[in-house]
Amino acid sequence: MASCIFCEIVANRQPASFVYRDELCAAFMDIQPVTRGHLLVIPNRHAAFLVELDPRVGGHLFAVAQRLAQALRESEVRCEGINLFLADGTVAGQEVFHVHLHVIPRHRGDGFGLRFPPDYGRRPPRHELDAVAESIRAAL
Amino acid sequence: MASCIFCEIVANRQPASFVYRDELCAAFMDIQPVTRGHLLVIPNRHAAFLVELDPRVGGHLFAVAQRLAQALRESEVRCEGINLFLADGTVAGQEVFHVHLHVIPRHRGDGFGLRFPPDYGRRPPRHELDAVAESIRAAL
Repeated sequence: MASCIFCEIVANRQPASFVYRDELCAAFMDIQPVTRGHLLVIPNRHAAFLVELDPRVGGHLFAVAQRLAQALRESEVRCEGINLFLADGTVAGQEVFHVHLHVIPRHRGDGFGLRFPPDYGRRPPRHELDAVAESIRAAL
Repeated sequence: MASCIFCEIVANRQPASFVYRDELCAAFMDIQPVTRGHLLVIPNRHAAFLVELDPRVGGHLFAVAQRLAQALRESEVRCEGINLFLADGTVAGQEVFHVHLHVIPRHRGDGFGLRFPPDYGRRPPRHELDAVAESIRAAL
C-alpha cells in the first residue's frame, strides 16, 4: 500500500503528530483541522472502507476515540463538546481511502456543523419508517 | 430515567421502528431522517454522554453500526456511501441526552454534508500540531 498516506504514517515513513498508538490503531492530528485539536483514529492495517474493517478493530477505534474525547476535554484545547464523524465512500465525503474516525473538539461559535437537505424536518408516518426498517432488517 | 425518550424506547413504552436489538444495544429509524434510511444505534443502558458509556459498549455500538452500514448498502434504500456521526454535548449538536450513533445513508445530490468554519483549509505548521498533540497526550 505504498500509495496510501495513512499506511505511510503507520510505517513511520511520513510524519504525523501522534497522540496515541497501540497494536491495532493510531491517533494523530488532522493536518487540516476543522477546529484546533481535531484528531483522526485509524486502523494500523489498511482497510479502505468499513466493509473491509474487522468489527473488533472498528470497536477498538471507537473505544480509543472515547478516551481521546475525554483527554481533549481535560487538555488545554478549547473543548465544550465533541463530534465523532466517519465518511465511508466518496459521496459521503471520504477523501483518504483508509478508514479514519474524526474526533472533533467543539466550542461555542466554532462555525462547524452539519448542512441539512432542503426538506429536512419532515417526520415520516410510522408505517413509512416501519417499511424502511423492514427492508434493512431483511438485508442484515 | 422516565424522562428519557430513548430509555422509553428500550423499555418498549414508546414506539420505534427497530432494525436490530441485542443485550447491549438497539438500532431503530430516526423519526426525523436526514436521508431515507437514517438509523440510530443506542446503548440499552442509559448514558447521557460518552464519558458515562462503558468503552466495551461503545465499541459494540460501532461494530453494530458497521453491520447496519453494510445492510443499508444491500437493502433497497438508496445508499452510495455512509456517514457515522455522534454529537457529545449541546454545543456539538446533541439534542437527546442518551448516547446515539447516527448511521446515515448517502447518495449523490442528497443535500447533506458538513458546514465548515470560515477559516477552514489552513494547514498549521508541524510544530503547532506537535504542541497540541503534546497537550492531549498529557491528558490521556
